[in-house]
Amino acid sequence: MTSEDLYPVSRLAAAQEATAKAGLDALLLTPGPDLRYVSGYQALPLERLTCLVVPAAGEPYMMVPRLELPAAQASPASRLGLEFVAWDETDDPYEIAARRLGSVAQVGLADRMWAMASLAFRAAMPGTEQVLAGTVLRELRMRKSAAEVEALREAGEAIDAVHRQVPGFLRAGRTEREVGRDIADAILAAGHETVDFVIVASGPNGASPHHELSDRVIQAGEPVVVDIGGQLHNGYCSDSTRNYCVGEPPAEYAAYFEVLRRAQDAACEAVRPGVSCESVDAAAREVITEAGFGEKFIHRTGHGIGIETHEEPYIVAGNGELMEPGFAFSVEPGIYLAGSHGARIEDILVCTDSGGLRLNNTPRDLVII
Amino acid sequence: MTSEDLYPVSRLAAAQEATAKAGLDALLLTPGPDLRYVSGYQALPLERLTCLVVPAAGEPYMMVPRLELPAAQASPASRLGLEFVAWDETDDPYEIAARRLGSVAQVGLADRMWAMASLAFRAAMPGTEQVLAGTVLRELRMRKSAAEVEALREAGEAIDAVHRQVPGFLRAGRTEREVGRDIADAILAAGHETVDFVIVASGPNGASPHHELSDRVIQAGEPVVVDIGGQLHNGYCSDSTRNYCVGEPPAEYAAYFEVLRRAQDAACEAVRPGVSCESVDAAAREVITEAGFGEKFIHRTGHGIGIETHEEPYIVAGNGELMEPGFAFSVEPGIYLAGSHGARIEDILVCTDSGGLRLNNTPRDLVII
Repeated sequence: MTSEDLYPVSRLAAAQEATAKAGLDALLLTPGPDLRYVSGYQALPLERLTCLVVPAAGEPYMMVPRLELPAAQASPASRLGLEFVAWDETDDPYEIAARRLGSVAQVGLADRMWAMASLAFRAAMPGTEQVLAGTVLRELRMRKSAAEVEALREAGEAIDAVHRQVPGFLRAGRTEREVGRDIADAILAAGHETVDFVIVASGPNGASPHHELSDRVIQAGEPVVVDIGGQLHNGYCSDSTRNYCVGEPPAEYAAYFEVLRRAQDAACEAVRPGVSCESVDAAAREVITEAGFGEKFIHRTGHGIGIETHEEPYIVAGNGELMEPGFAFSVEPGIYLAGSHGARIEDILVCTDSGGLRLNNTPRDLVII
Repeated sequence: MTSEDLYPVSRLAAAQEATAKAGLDALLLTPGPDLRYVSGYQALPLERLTCLVVPAAGEPYMMVPRLELPAAQASPASRLGLEFVAWDETDDPYEIAARRLGSVAQVGLADRMWAMASLAFRAAMPGTEQVLAGTVLRELRMRKSAAEVEALREAGEAIDAVHRQVPGFLRAGRTEREVGRDIADAILAAGHETVDFVIVASGPNGASPHHELSDRVIQAGEPVVVDIGGQLHNGYCSDSTRNYCVGEPPAEYAAYFEVLRRAQDAACEAVRPGVSCESVDAAAREVITEAGFGEKFIHRTGHGIGIETHEEPYIVAGNGELMEPGFAFSVEPGIYLAGSHGARIEDILVCTDSGGLRLNNTPRDLVII
């Protein structure tokens, strides 16, 4: 899989077409996932403006600080045949970009554009309404190409390989942080470029879904939630949660873990083209609620994933978006008993013509060490 | 040095006072350096809104997604005695924040607030003007406390320890990337939490100031620019550039390197309270221009540093800000001969009552290996 497969040159034209279709005059894409998605350029986020300007009509161009010009020219963005507009240290790049664009009614800003840039663009283009570029790009980014699905499958295999090593890292007497350090090393060794998060949540910490690492010493008989992910060199992300226990877990835990297993299966089985995102959330929630744990499932069922760990579509009540082949997202219901323990089971799925395909494939049962 | 020394509880009141003094009604601080500076909370940047609301008058509070609540409560922000306003998955946190704040004329947004948040705040507070929180916080952040200077000194020592190891990593026949990997490991081993950048720019790559790493094989007799930095666990950043050569460099290089040495010294010597930032830039530029290399010094002389590698004050033409004790910044002139090689010498300095104090102290001469 080459960079060209994942970030095809054709994507710029697709973005331009979508911009025109949405009635926007231009997209302004500063460093971050939107810029990388459209151009392949993984630019550093800096206070000096780098910005791909994608007008609905006319030639796209990229504002670059003069000293980033070699980096931009060496990046995949050079394939696009667009003009690099280099600006010097004492120039105002926002003024230059605005002048080139002329008077326009509405521009879409990269979802992660820093306020220092969005407000500078506002000042340089006082009559122009700002909306999110995401309103345009989400339609593209949500629908993964075959190459993108392949990259996510590769990411899934990489993080599965790490989960397989976790029983070797986890022992009673070690701290969450010690175990987390081993996991982080394994994430990099498995082919990720970055470690994005390492949650090792033992005992009561497992009841806090976004607990990361602490110096708490793991005890025998304590369930441990391990939720880990990173970003491959090609930009695509992994994310999977499994549950471990050193010795036998409390009976109360074993009972609700079984409910969670069924809930996660139910949500995965609900995935197919044409069903709404919220109905997948409901499928998991229903099983958990029926078993009396509805109030213990305190978050949405999942999030889209691609070149960001969290992106559209969100699997949450209120999201009526209908699934299509190529949607990729997590299914990760959880049950959390504050003060005691918790559990979450998470796979990344891609929606295919025939239903949901899981990209994580290590055993989902509680792993007893 | 404790977290309380670096992120004192008193800072919230100072931010509030500065907000009132600047005529703003409130600061809205989403995850990033502004939030960390004011509260000590190193929150994850997520699509779910976390935001410290600092009204000019009245009680500050922090919007947090319900599942980040334990993390927020366990963070240094809990020392501040402020209210955590937890919001649920199907709430609109922007509406909630806006309702609590009431009708206000002007708010300051964290400089790095994502457009997805700034535009959502705009929609929730339609009559409110948005400016940068930086306009308020820069006045505080620019003036480092004794504890902050101590943290920067510690960061300087850590990166100096890495530069001392570089001669052991650099050999003809190795690639920039191989050397860079060793340096990255050493940056972490020296006590940094993250590796922020590793520039190993050999031969012609040295002529591109922001070149990072490539698979280029380093040759004997080629100057190599090594510009490296990271962030300590306490949040403070390091950044230092030195120049190396495997064997003797070309005579042409040796000649301009000597000019650069003098230019960097001149700029460092120009630092004292009351001089303008641009005059420090001019001090370096003058030496380089007089020697006939003015057009080869293609960037500003430096940038402020603290909990961001690049922050105020910028040492650049046009910045008339007058130096005060506690200002901390890089002095890093460079000379770049496109196609051939380049050099840059960089130290972090802090302005003291008696002049500039260098926080990097490895030899600045070309290191011949």
